[in-house]
Amino acid sequence: MRINEKIYKTIWYQKAEDCVFIIDQTKLPFETIITKLFCLDDVLKAINTMQVRGAPLIGATAAFGLYLAYKDTPSEANLIDAANKIKNTRPTAINLFWAIETVINKIDFSEESSKIKERLLFEALEICDQDINSCKKIGVYGLELIKKACKNKKINILTHCNAGWLATIDWGTATAPIYFAKDNNIDVHVWVDETRPRNQGALLTSFELNNEKVSNTIITDNAGGLLMQRGKVDLCITGADRVLKNGYVINKVGTYLKAIAAKENNIPFYVAIPSSTIDWETEDYRKVIIEERDREELNKIKGLDSEGKINTIDIYPEGSNIYNPAFDITPNNLITALITDKGIIKAETEALKKLKNE
Amino acid sequence: MRINEKIYKTIWYQKAEDCVFIIDQTKLPFETIITKLFCLDDVLKAINTMQVRGAPLIGATAAFGLYLAYKDTPSEANLIDAANKIKNTRPTAINLFWAIETVINKIDFSEESSKIKERLLFEALEICDQDINSCKKIGVYGLELIKKACKNKKINILTHCNAGWLATIDWGTATAPIYFAKDNNIDVHVWVDETRPRNQGALLTSFELNNEKVSNTIITDNAGGLLMQRGKVDLCITGADRVLKNGYVINKVGTYLKAIAAKENNIPFYVAIPSSTIDWETEDYRKVIIEERDREELNKIKGLDSEGKINTIDIYPEGSNIYNPAFDITPNNLITALITDKGIIKAETEALKKLKNE
Repeated sequence: MRINEKIYKTIWYQKAEDCVFIIDQTKLPFETIITKLFCLDDVLKAINTMQVRGAPLIGATAAFGLYLAYKDTPSEANLIDAANKIKNTRPTAINLFWAIETVINKIDFSEESSKIKERLLFEALEICDQDINSCKKIGVYGLELIKKACKNKKINILTHCNAGWLATIDWGTATAPIYFAKDNNIDVHVWVDETRPRNQGALLTSFELNNEKVSNTIITDNAGGLLMQRGKVDLCITGADRVLKNGYVINKVGTYLKAIAAKENNIPFYVAIPSSTIDWETEDYRKVIIEERDREELNKIKGLDSEGKINTIDIYPEGSNIYNPAFDITPNNLITALITDKGIIKAETEALKKLKNE
Repeated sequence: MRINEKIYKTIWYQKAEDCVFIIDQTKLPFETIITKLFCLDDVLKAINTMQVRGAPLIGATAAFGLYLAYKDTPSEANLIDAANKIKNTRPTAINLFWAIETVINKIDFSEESSKIKERLLFEALEICDQDINSCKKIGVYGLELIKKACKNKKINILTHCNAGWLATIDWGTATAPIYFAKDNNIDVHVWVDETRPRNQGALLTSFELNNEKVSNTIITDNAGGLLMQRGKVDLCITGADRVLKNGYVINKVGTYLKAIAAKENNIPFYVAIPSSTIDWETEDYRKVIIEERDREELNKIKGLDSEGKINTIDIYPEGSNIYNPAFDITPNNLITALITDKGIIKAETEALKKLKNE
């Protein structure tokens, strides 16, 4: 997709320097900075500080992390150690575990280390390609839903957080149907939830929709209910960090409130995911550990000061208590359907089981 | 109530300078600045720029505005003109209209202007006293609800925006039951919604609870659903800017989402109001005009920079579209009860009619 009319992916490998390039998303939208990852520590830092974020992109970064770790110290023990370190960065993103398992399972440790190294790189690139394909398929399936819903009129879609191309390698999950709709000349307008505390909606989703010339408006997370009540939202699409085997959705905190409001106002609520987002182990949503992040994510805000310089300020009263859960859980009965790379399915155990077996 | 252990009200008259004192709430919590209002223009500015905010405090400020306007130009025409100007400041706060009507109706224009002036001041002071009494009564009635709900255990209350003493003259509406609970040695903890875009929860509610030593934690507006789902909220109390005659509640945007979530999770949702907040005219919530405020309320944020100076920064991508409705509407079926100065009543036409006739 485009930033300032130039085509990018969120992550790519460069042979000349034998390293991985990312867009440092903590600097967006104010600066487009390309950062190089040379070693495991660079990868851990990139995931921990959210230079890369979004479940699919975290997964791809993790896969490259295995390659970079093995390149430095080519031993099985070191690779397993690296895998564990990467798994510990973000407990909620299931793609992280999926990517690591997928890559490790493909490795034959009896092979020469140069072969293993090659294979690790190949698998990381493969995960990127797979993700791009998945997102395109989500776009194709989602486009059909939008076509049906819009009936040749303008369509208003509400989204939460950033499940855009910046959260994947290209296209995005929740945004793929929107970009496909735009390319099909559908008059689409997106309500972009600001998405406190890190404001990924305002900072990233609005930024990428602007760059792709998709009509969009930022609203506070509080405003969506009123818009739904007043008939200003035709459908909702979000991404997910993890979908349980029974269709419960773990996504950026605030998703649950929008899903309840959509149900209350008879508005379809879709969740767009590549099938790698599905957690085939967990069924009981009460057992899901919700990542608690630093209180400073609420208190500190970055922006441009009157001189146009990036400045960070403290916005809360000194010494206030803050609680900052990063995700919430949306029960399957609030979800109209999942838009997956394998088709549109109900958010329920049977449908997911069928998809797994396909 | 207290700021830094010193007792304040939010607005008071001082004879020596014949002017009205307010706490400039746009500077809180970073600075406690007392501002003097000498004339109608000062009052209009104070309401428009939200130096004073909260339905009851806006009402009291409006009443003082009539006095200050008449003092400058003691004519009936001028007073009516001033009344209209004040009414145009904030279209949603019903207390504003109520306060102006109440005062104007008490004026006998056949009297001498010095008498009228005296009367205008008396009525403004009367509105302040009435409000303090109303809030105390809300506290007494609300305390009974809390006592029943807590059963000698810790009680977790969620509130949205600031319906604290800073929104009234003293005690607050939603906070009055909380302060009464604290004074009755109930182990009360408050989840404070940040309340984007102006963050009145984080800036004002948390600030005043801290000053009164009530245990509280700031959360993003997005987090309340998860907390309810995980059993961390025992009841919700908010204030209201206006309650329709059928019990529909107009309050700070985001209230509706919390009310739906409370219903979904079987958590009582109370709205605390003085009866002056009730709009006896309007029944159809779709006819309520929702005040749209400046886009800059989302984009510009004030806080302390690394040198401890107040700095304002732009936090959004340049040129983003923003929509900023200030209020939303909560249907009466989502409200467990109204906590009023005349007792606890159902949010429905019959109960409200009965209250009106008392």
